[in-house]
Amino acid sequence: MKLHGYWRSSASWRVRLALEWKGLAYENLPVHLVQDGGQQHTEAYRAKNPMRQVPLLELDQGRALTQSLAILEYLEEVHPVPALLPEDPFLRAKVRQIAEIVNAGIQPLQNLGTLQRVQALGGDSKDWAREWIERGLAAVEQELSRYAGAFCVGDQLTFADLCLIPQLYGARRFEVDLAPYPHATRIEAACAELPAFRRAHPESQPDANR
Amino acid sequence: MKLHGYWRSSASWRVRLALEWKGLAYENLPVHLVQDGGQQHTEAYRAKNPMRQVPLLELDQGRALTQSLAILEYLEEVHPVPALLPEDPFLRAKVRQIAEIVNAGIQPLQNLGTLQRVQALGGDSKDWAREWIERGLAAVEQELSRYAGAFCVGDQLTFADLCLIPQLYGARRFEVDLAPYPHATRIEAACAELPAFRRAHPESQPDANR
Repeated sequence: MKLHGYWRSSASWRVRLALEWKGLAYENLPVHLVQDGGQQHTEAYRAKNPMRQVPLLELDQGRALTQSLAILEYLEEVHPVPALLPEDPFLRAKVRQIAEIVNAGIQPLQNLGTLQRVQALGGDSKDWAREWIERGLAAVEQELSRYAGAFCVGDQLTFADLCLIPQLYGARRFEVDLAPYPHATRIEAACAELPAFRRAHPESQPDANR
Repeated sequence: MKLHGYWRSSASWRVRLALEWKGLAYENLPVHLVQDGGQQHTEAYRAKNPMRQVPLLELDQGRALTQSLAILEYLEEVHPVPALLPEDPFLRAKVRQIAEIVNAGIQPLQNLGTLQRVQALGGDSKDWAREWIERGLAAVEQELSRYAGAFCVGDQLTFADLCLIPQLYGARRFEVDLAPYPHATRIEAACAELPAFRRAHPESQPDANR
């Protein structure tokens, strides 16, 4: 598999985490979201993904997938062990709910393309991002207070953790005060100890800080 | 089950479509997103969903779910027949990819809360919405050109159709020219013939046009 991603993209990071956790080999193909006006805007990349976003996972025989949560579900179905979803249907739904609060409730509103548009309107992109991140993290924290164990939902690592950890890194970039989210930061500390999380971390990527 | 929703909310509409398609009984509890400054902002509703969004599906014993795609996955797992996902893992991923292009790639950028913030910055909310909708529909159309049959992915109704149809209705509200998306509009016409789609349509809801 070939993963087109960017070291600091939270959605790319989620997919790297799933690949690393499941021990799946992949080739890392950096797409620089800032250099050259953003390599995601090139004609070659847009032909692969008209959304002009990472990640893009190339499988085989010309088959490719975009959208990080769709990719996570695919990897879970094709490589079910070690599992990233619990067995109980309601808890599976809670995992997906938390993942979607990040994926659809926060990230689209604070990603690079959106913030560039906010700045073009004369808005303060950091204020804009912070507001959506705080709303989303408050909603996540409420779920964690009910369902978290060692990780977001019980004691098993799931999609929810794979979405939360990159989002917390993003929150720090926008100087969000994380004190109101003690469950989230406790889980973040636990994840940081896991080798898969160290390997998938932005700073461990070949395109880090370029 | 009790569905807290709003007649014209595209995410509520997706869940109504799944419930109707699977023949599941539910109570419809309208949350007016505009009246009284938005009933989603009341303390009582925020206690249920700090994201201040619909839909919210109450199950039983105080258990509840938010995030429309998490709800769709839950309904599919607990009530698998009639199926809303194909059997092949890659096609399941394509369904989810298309659903996420709408759910995470378009809708968060053009929903009411976001547009209110854009207006507060002095931006033209219709221009803003139109740009994101057009980018997203172009990406969906490219997938449809490869994978569509009678519906978005093959000849089976799936999550992808449940997300696309409400998004097209939203596109019209923002006066998006739909001519570049012939597969999407053909599928929309096919869906409009289905009784479940007629029952789930915004204009069929008790709170329509209030």
